[in-house]
Amino acid sequence: MKLASLKHGRDGRLVVVSRDLTRATDAFPVVATLQQALDDWSRAGPRLADLAEQLDHGSVPSFRFHEHDCMSPLPRAYQWADGSAYVNHVALVRQARGVEMPPSFWTDPLMYQGGSDSFLGPRDPIVLPDEAHGIDFEGEVAVITDDVPMGVTPEEARGLIRLVMLCNDVSLRNLIPAELAKGFGFFQSKPASAFSPVAVTPDELGPAWTEGRLSLPLTAWFNGEPFGKPNAGIDMTFDFGTLIAHAARTRPLVAGTIIGSGTVSNRDSDGGPGLPVSEGGLGYVCIAEQRTVETIRAGKASTPFMRFGDAVRLEMRDARGHSIFGAIDQIVRRHHA
Amino acid sequence: MKLASLKHGRDGRLVVVSRDLTRATDAFPVVATLQQALDDWSRAGPRLADLAEQLDHGSVPSFRFHEHDCMSPLPRAYQWADGSAYVNHVALVRQARGVEMPPSFWTDPLMYQGGSDSFLGPRDPIVLPDEAHGIDFEGEVAVITDDVPMGVTPEEARGLIRLVMLCNDVSLRNLIPAELAKGFGFFQSKPASAFSPVAVTPDELGPAWTEGRLSLPLTAWFNGEPFGKPNAGIDMTFDFGTLIAHAARTRPLVAGTIIGSGTVSNRDSDGGPGLPVSEGGLGYVCIAEQRTVETIRAGKASTPFMRFGDAVRLEMRDARGHSIFGAIDQIVRRHHA
Repeated sequence: MKLASLKHGRDGRLVVVSRDLTRATDAFPVVATLQQALDDWSRAGPRLADLAEQLDHGSVPSFRFHEHDCMSPLPRAYQWADGSAYVNHVALVRQARGVEMPPSFWTDPLMYQGGSDSFLGPRDPIVLPDEAHGIDFEGEVAVITDDVPMGVTPEEARGLIRLVMLCNDVSLRNLIPAELAKGFGFFQSKPASAFSPVAVTPDELGPAWTEGRLSLPLTAWFNGEPFGKPNAGIDMTFDFGTLIAHAARTRPLVAGTIIGSGTVSNRDSDGGPGLPVSEGGLGYVCIAEQRTVETIRAGKASTPFMRFGDAVRLEMRDARGHSIFGAIDQIVRRHHA
Repeated sequence: MKLASLKHGRDGRLVVVSRDLTRATDAFPVVATLQQALDDWSRAGPRLADLAEQLDHGSVPSFRFHEHDCMSPLPRAYQWADGSAYVNHVALVRQARGVEMPPSFWTDPLMYQGGSDSFLGPRDPIVLPDEAHGIDFEGEVAVITDDVPMGVTPEEARGLIRLVMLCNDVSLRNLIPAELAKGFGFFQSKPASAFSPVAVTPDELGPAWTEGRLSLPLTAWFNGEPFGKPNAGIDMTFDFGTLIAHAARTRPLVAGTIIGSGTVSNRDSDGGPGLPVSEGGLGYVCIAEQRTVETIRAGKASTPFMRFGDAVRLEMRDARGHSIFGAIDQIVRRHHA
């Protein structure tokens, strides 16, 4: 089943979307918004699945689905907790910042509490006050959970994943060092994130979804050029079950909690950071990582961060080349107060 | 106007409460939940104020109000961002941890993104897995905002404060050092917080509410004994307008955003940390601060953190001795998985 929230009010209008992302039908007979569905998933989930089957058979009224009509599947959420499951990414970015990475990072997940009050739509501009803040995209996989009890095990947690989607975790790189030095984590350096037009149930992913990991390439384009295509199932040190269990160690998580994978990142076959796409490598799904590799190889970074007018596109295709979640496709714009 | 959310479903049942906290009337003719009211405050706010006036005049049906029937005013919220406005508290706690405080902390607000998906009710037990985590309470003042545009000024932000309440920001002291050392801020060390039974509009606070500060003593009792009574209007380095503007520097904030003051803390008249209540001082509204003072004075902390069965009570009274927000009154219980 694939679900999307069309632009409407603060929480959108929930629709069930066809597998090929061409048609949709209103979920209103079951529930008005995605949060409402998650609040009562044991009842709403099966009914939405019925609706998806009817849409598939053409036995319900449907209309043309356009990705640009979408808000993020949860336009606002009660929780957004972003892990750093691709420890390779953390190691590289720290290397560029000249900060050592403790070995415990390979065994104890890193996770921050993100702002969840107003996500950007997948085709909305990224409106920010200052290019000098070092505007970057980060391509991630994210899951939406059901209610999760405190102390859940990773195995139990995997069974509480209701939906999967993509994320652009927008970051302001030049604000990060000073903010993290204050000791309380990210705040101003993490403006609103965007999620893919469509969220899908894990069963839609077939064999690509195994033990809390999604084994398909996440592709990034920067200003229309291919920028990265790392496989999200490779080098994911912590699966989503482990990330959820980490989040739920000292508190329960409410249904509709979004857990992010952190920036997807693959090591090269030689264990190094690999090559940019332009040199035949898998590339990167954030600029910071490419800049790190440039710094390691050439002594300095040559790819600038995003400027007003720059565009990023994030997408994931299945084995037959079909877009699973629709595309996040955003342009950076200047904020005018 | 005073508002509360009675226990009902995930979001409570909004009621308007009399000034003396003895009676309430259903807000349902206007709106069902507090978040719905905040989503449309320009319409709902005045109608709820009308209802409050009718309650005052006895011209609407009302019923006995019991604080123990309450959830937190927002039982779950889209955002909980907690400042550290009482820099004195930060300086003391750091002193005890042996960590230096940068001088910029006096000019650049410290703020962390807190978990907002499931707050505890003001009389709910604090259910946690392990006493060894160093369970502590933190008494704070918190405000709920309307929609806040990106780049708001502190002055503008003050005008977007819709409600004021108290908070018990539960902290797991012994998890904090290792978690902050990872660099991404608090997560497991900040389990669910609780808020006061009642949230009030700033006009209810009269002259005690001036320029984004609430100048009344916040009283804490620990296991029935007075523990602290610092004045929330004193030594608050950053007013709520400044805290909101800090949060909104790179993103807008959605209506229903909760901004916390951080632990209320007063310096002594000699500039030092003052004395415990038992020695005639103003005391403290978290155990960590008392332990810090013990460490400074006696070389080691003697007050243990909370154990299962321990109780904390937080309340604020007006100049005539009447409880403004009702009391947060919670017992710590062991979590059984």
